[in-house]
Amino acid sequence: MILVRPSFLLGRFRTYSTARSSLTVDALVYPKYGRPTEVLKWHSYPLPALTPETVHVKFLASPINPADVNQLQGAYPVKPPFELLGNTDDTKYAVGGNEGVAQVIATGDKVTDLKVGDRVTMAKAGYGTWRTYAAGPVSDFQPLSKADKNVTDVQLATLSVNPCTAYRMLKDFVHLEKGDYVIQNGANSAVGQSVIQLAKAWGIKTVNVVRNRPDIDQLRDDLMQLGATHVITDDVLGSHETKTMIKEWGQPKLGLNCVGGKSATEMARHLSANGQFVTYGAMARAPLALPASLLIFKNLAFHGFWMTRWTDTHSMEERTEMVDDLVAMMARGDFVEPKWTQVDWKEDSVKSAVDHGIQGFGTGKQVILF
Amino acid sequence: MILVRPSFLLGRFRTYSTARSSLTVDALVYPKYGRPTEVLKWHSYPLPALTPETVHVKFLASPINPADVNQLQGAYPVKPPFELLGNTDDTKYAVGGNEGVAQVIATGDKVTDLKVGDRVTMAKAGYGTWRTYAAGPVSDFQPLSKADKNVTDVQLATLSVNPCTAYRMLKDFVHLEKGDYVIQNGANSAVGQSVIQLAKAWGIKTVNVVRNRPDIDQLRDDLMQLGATHVITDDVLGSHETKTMIKEWGQPKLGLNCVGGKSATEMARHLSANGQFVTYGAMARAPLALPASLLIFKNLAFHGFWMTRWTDTHSMEERTEMVDDLVAMMARGDFVEPKWTQVDWKEDSVKSAVDHGIQGFGTGKQVILF
Repeated sequence: MILVRPSFLLGRFRTYSTARSSLTVDALVYPKYGRPTEVLKWHSYPLPALTPETVHVKFLASPINPADVNQLQGAYPVKPPFELLGNTDDTKYAVGGNEGVAQVIATGDKVTDLKVGDRVTMAKAGYGTWRTYAAGPVSDFQPLSKADKNVTDVQLATLSVNPCTAYRMLKDFVHLEKGDYVIQNGANSAVGQSVIQLAKAWGIKTVNVVRNRPDIDQLRDDLMQLGATHVITDDVLGSHETKTMIKEWGQPKLGLNCVGGKSATEMARHLSANGQFVTYGAMARAPLALPASLLIFKNLAFHGFWMTRWTDTHSMEERTEMVDDLVAMMARGDFVEPKWTQVDWKEDSVKSAVDHGIQGFGTGKQVILF
Repeated sequence: MILVRPSFLLGRFRTYSTARSSLTVDALVYPKYGRPTEVLKWHSYPLPALTPETVHVKFLASPINPADVNQLQGAYPVKPPFELLGNTDDTKYAVGGNEGVAQVIATGDKVTDLKVGDRVTMAKAGYGTWRTYAAGPVSDFQPLSKADKNVTDVQLATLSVNPCTAYRMLKDFVHLEKGDYVIQNGANSAVGQSVIQLAKAWGIKTVNVVRNRPDIDQLRDDLMQLGATHVITDDVLGSHETKTMIKEWGQPKLGLNCVGGKSATEMARHLSANGQFVTYGAMARAPLALPASLLIFKNLAFHGFWMTRWTDTHSMEERTEMVDDLVAMMARGDFVEPKWTQVDWKEDSVKSAVDHGIQGFGTGKQVILF
């Protein structure tokens, strides 16, 4: 893991703070939706000049997320802007990627909210994070005031989607008291690991459902180490013994689902009356089947959660409160990043990672380090 | 339709207002759950004596609802009390039925909230309404202060479940402005007809889905007459033309589902973003299949509604406010009862109606007139 120290970088970039930019941006762009490895191409263009209200940032790390791949295929509801990026032909490009961390390397004269050396994430989805530099107004970026040197670039680069999703799902659907239970499937996903860590920090107990596998004992140990209260496998989720066991532990008030299909329905059956069930993914690619009795007599409610919509419908103040809270946990060592592998900043490496993503990723985040 | 005039009845029953009761109750009771027509039996017992805090009521009309049949089978979450009813052997009985209207025929000396001649419904499910008389505290009964002579016994006997369900579903899940759309399936059910009438009275527009049938034009006319804005058949619910048409009318903010299965999923697709979908029945006996995209990207939320739970978790004041509102609409002629057929108060007639209920009822309520 590479630890970038802002204090070290400050000197290197201070010279750009007022000068007209002479930097060249290298970016992975696409002119249209299609097969990701075919439409993605390397493109270089001059970084737009600094203006009084804009900043220049240098990207430090950007993950390759499943949604990025869907977006390239045109199958994601967030459509990135297609723009002329320094090129003089009429081809408009979108820059790949949605999440990442960058460092401010220059600020316009009227900018007061950011300073050179600050690390930032993107304020909204659809920004285009697979590039070396970007220029834009302060409102494009999310300040990270709590990001001290203990917080790594990879932690910040993977903050905006998964940890924030876990944070909101635990906060926004039901009031959880200390000792209350949450049940989640896909518990070893990046969101799942975030849920475990946040719940532990907040005194909430977790029942974590994972697929059975040859190395299940290792996975159980890893998740328990992270703060999981219980880990169970999906092949026993519907059994009478599991039902009795979960009732003894305490029926969960909240269910978090990124799988769908039969396993999700079985998970819903373990919720307490009036429980809330939140779907944020569909890894099994099968719809959620809801017996009417769970709705009518047990009064379960079924919601969806999508971080992009939350961000679009909430103020910068609310976003900052959440981000500061998460980053402060990272600074204290209470929140670690998910397992990840480095992707080199080369056209072939990124394309190969995207191609891997089409197959369904597997475990661990892929993160471009610039 | 039989119109019972309280003023006419008053004289007949006034003699019981303070005397110790010498009335005999005839009831259809069951000693255990089982095949309804086998376990149901006629039972007569003395009406318990009046006490200072109790009232005596005479039943006027009680429907035979699907839930009553399920309850007899032991398949309904509301379990009625099994009690000794005047009998000296040890057999405890439950009285059939949950809904009905009765008239106060005697009041204890300390009773101030009800007077002889008042019509009442049952305060809660599980009371046992297939009997001629009952005795109990005032809290067993729901006063109907707005029930003037224009309001029929059948209207009141069928008020507590279906019209109240429609009322709450339209009020409690999303704020509807005048001109907003609601979509519902099973639109010709008793709840469906209540939804149509309430929505019309409140300025809300309705898209009403019914099964296609040979006499569809007649049914459409009937529902339009009742106040439906649009009537469509379920066989075209998933078509592109229907989608375009509903978009032009205005996408519904609320969906009400008593069917389930494929038709319910198709109905959900017509909701506007952030729409609320409420399931209160499962006539198709198939689970609701929810594609994750409707939850995650369209942000639909799926709830259940069960009138019994609402009643159990809300105060008498809230219940009275709703009941008064509905009864006042009935008194003004703005709310008519569903189609119904009379069931005679004879063991064979009621058993035959219950047996008919096991087959799924069909259209129209069956109402015992005492």
